[in-house]
Amino acid sequence: MTLNKLDAVRSYVDDNFDASVNRLIDWLKIPSVSTDSKFDEEVLRAANWMGEQLQALGFQIKLIETAGHPVLYAERASDDAGAPTALYYGHYDVQPGDPFELWETAPFEPVIKDSKYGKKLVARGAQDDKGQVMTFIEAFRAWIEVAGNLPCNVKIMLEGEEETGSPSLAGFLEANKELLKADVCVVCDTAMWDIDTPAITYSLRGLVDAEITITGPTRDLHSGMYGGAVVNPLHALSAIVADLHDKDGKIQIKDFYDGVPPLTQEERDELAALNHDDDGFFGEIGLSGPAGEPEFTALEKLWARPTCDVNGMWGGYIGEGHKTVIASEASLKLSCRLVGDQDPIAILKNIEAFFQERLPKDFTMKFTNHGFGHPAKLPIDSPFLKAAKAGLDYEFDNPTKLIGMGGSIPAVGQIKETLGLDSVMVGFGLSDDNIHSPNEKYELTCLQRGIRSHAAILAKLAEVK
Amino acid sequence: MTLNKLDAVRSYVDDNFDASVNRLIDWLKIPSVSTDSKFDEEVLRAANWMGEQLQALGFQIKLIETAGHPVLYAERASDDAGAPTALYYGHYDVQPGDPFELWETAPFEPVIKDSKYGKKLVARGAQDDKGQVMTFIEAFRAWIEVAGNLPCNVKIMLEGEEETGSPSLAGFLEANKELLKADVCVVCDTAMWDIDTPAITYSLRGLVDAEITITGPTRDLHSGMYGGAVVNPLHALSAIVADLHDKDGKIQIKDFYDGVPPLTQEERDELAALNHDDDGFFGEIGLSGPAGEPEFTALEKLWARPTCDVNGMWGGYIGEGHKTVIASEASLKLSCRLVGDQDPIAILKNIEAFFQERLPKDFTMKFTNHGFGHPAKLPIDSPFLKAAKAGLDYEFDNPTKLIGMGGSIPAVGQIKETLGLDSVMVGFGLSDDNIHSPNEKYELTCLQRGIRSHAAILAKLAEVK
Repeated sequence: MTLNKLDAVRSYVDDNFDASVNRLIDWLKIPSVSTDSKFDEEVLRAANWMGEQLQALGFQIKLIETAGHPVLYAERASDDAGAPTALYYGHYDVQPGDPFELWETAPFEPVIKDSKYGKKLVARGAQDDKGQVMTFIEAFRAWIEVAGNLPCNVKIMLEGEEETGSPSLAGFLEANKELLKADVCVVCDTAMWDIDTPAITYSLRGLVDAEITITGPTRDLHSGMYGGAVVNPLHALSAIVADLHDKDGKIQIKDFYDGVPPLTQEERDELAALNHDDDGFFGEIGLSGPAGEPEFTALEKLWARPTCDVNGMWGGYIGEGHKTVIASEASLKLSCRLVGDQDPIAILKNIEAFFQERLPKDFTMKFTNHGFGHPAKLPIDSPFLKAAKAGLDYEFDNPTKLIGMGGSIPAVGQIKETLGLDSVMVGFGLSDDNIHSPNEKYELTCLQRGIRSHAAILAKLAEVK
Repeated sequence: MTLNKLDAVRSYVDDNFDASVNRLIDWLKIPSVSTDSKFDEEVLRAANWMGEQLQALGFQIKLIETAGHPVLYAERASDDAGAPTALYYGHYDVQPGDPFELWETAPFEPVIKDSKYGKKLVARGAQDDKGQVMTFIEAFRAWIEVAGNLPCNVKIMLEGEEETGSPSLAGFLEANKELLKADVCVVCDTAMWDIDTPAITYSLRGLVDAEITITGPTRDLHSGMYGGAVVNPLHALSAIVADLHDKDGKIQIKDFYDGVPPLTQEERDELAALNHDDDGFFGEIGLSGPAGEPEFTALEKLWARPTCDVNGMWGGYIGEGHKTVIASEASLKLSCRLVGDQDPIAILKNIEAFFQERLPKDFTMKFTNHGFGHPAKLPIDSPFLKAAKAGLDYEFDNPTKLIGMGGSIPAVGQIKETLGLDSVMVGFGLSDDNIHSPNEKYELTCLQRGIRSHAAILAKLAEVK
């Protein structure tokens, strides 16, 4: 019965697509930058905006407070009592807009432009994750408008701290286990294989995130009066950063590789069979090829190996001209991507120890943990994975690729840890969407086929018993 | 005859000291920050302010254009045709005020506060160099008011780019050799030994200054999508910085130590005899003792050894919270202090090569030279040095110390190179004046005794034949 209605639902999506785009544009105008407290009110406004949308669609909604930004929770039961319950996860916060000068149009003034695939919507969050969240929200709308209800029970959990590493989510999940009971989690925050080929992400890397400030002399010094007789904190921090990797790209933090599974020949063959376009991938960013651990291919490094990267570093005089100062402090932000059974908490401790042990005499250090997420892997034989694949097959001619992902969605690891739920990650991003960069965009064809796909996936999930 | 008038001149200084302080306060209110083009108009205003003062005192003045900020030139002949000509050098530009939050009062709103020595004037530039320049300007004023003229011929050259490494000064000196003809140069930009003990600086370190940006990937990257397979520019730059010194504090730049004179036993003995208070010097900045080359004492490192320090470093996301980005670029500002016959131009070339040779594959680099200065040393038997010493003896009970200086006054090296003039460096700063730091101050007693000293030095210089 459900599938009988699916074609009508998909027609509804197409006939009302302009309205879907306009709703997304309205949401994108709200600069819900979670990483900067200046935007706290806007973050809340973005949650409330979506809450009103869902309420109007007949969902029961709750804005649930956390230690940080609130979680927007919503639920709507299916008419079919035996249908499974799917918990949809996404996030309503976005990355900061800077560096603003590199945007062709303002990050929070969405515009539709021509693209090589037709039309694209350009704005911070156009893909990550507001555009992607809209693919399932608008699929729900279409089902409700056409069929009067959803084919399965739907719960929605949209957080506001994904871009800061989801620091409050673990506590939220723990406190709301009953409310969040479901059969599977569906996440829309990942990419397609290419514009014509859908993908389900079945593994992703975990994340730890830290900020470190080291302090040497108690105040900034004149480099002429003190230079040569004091340890310069920028030199000290640089030396520690230089020590993070050995010359083969191996990370030197104690016990860092504990829990990293060896790559089996089968996995390596599977990855090799994907025929990843290394030249195109690195050429697009001005590089002649991959760096890092020489014994692994680019895809192996990106999906199956852990990393450690400084994301920002600063100290001393960084304005125009020069100032012959020896800075009192030097700082950095650092994150690691984790795989397999690596333990984020142990790794955070060992990062702290790594810096602490290398501090010069008289130096002190401040260490701040900005959040973490466990790595996650979905079993290949999951019936929900098969249902999602069947839904995508309904929309796309090319068969769905099962892929890994170098990025992290801390929620996915925490949902597994706390709720015991596997996540099916189905997203419609493209690798050139510039997420976390200037001129982020989402192809309108990805948005439209994403909505149609989620409409079909809902129907297929309803059939899982 | 001249010395007969000196005591009247010194009394005039004391009787009119409040007016001297007020003039300095007016000058300090002008934020002449040369390192930031936002302040260009204020830099010009500070030059003109002093020009008007000197014109009112009967000096012939000229504001001479350079490639950067102009030089204020002034001259006034003595009635004694046979008197020598002294060229006074100082600078009217100041360091930036930041970090503003660490100032107890605003950097460009001068205030007089109690200090352990009586009263102090707190403002950016209070010592470096506006307060110090005022010591000779007010000495000239006193001579002119009391005796009707100056005991020797005086030329004044105040530049506006000292805090940016005097990039235009060499060209200016070359173009104005005739105008600047003199017998000796007198510089007031250095420190006393302590509050009761004057000092003449007879050697100072040279300086080179550079800014370097390295670029890897052509845009900022998502650390999840690319991490582990690209070289992170912040890691690459850190590795080069870590490589600048070996574990014994030796600088690894090619041929860096060419021209560094070995310390003779006599020099080492002289420095040791100064009984430098290492514990106090390092304790005041929260350090338990000196770092750097273990075979040299603190004073040897600070006055007789070259250095290489990163003065600022930045890249990636440095705002609040975190952003899992791999930056496209990483940058630093770096300066070296030079001694003996080190060649600044060769060293700049070798710094550039040092970074260039260590760039990872596919990386590019931008190198900017912010200026340089030769090291300088005044012969111990110079009659002008002896005259200055005699002038200081007239004011102070404690004998004058002859000291080296870790800092650099690029002008002094360039004046020697271009005009062939030695510089007598007589200044009245103290080591806790916080120059280049928040809460810069100048003791009013240093200002007053500085003016009285320069009045006496003028009389003594007039006697040199």
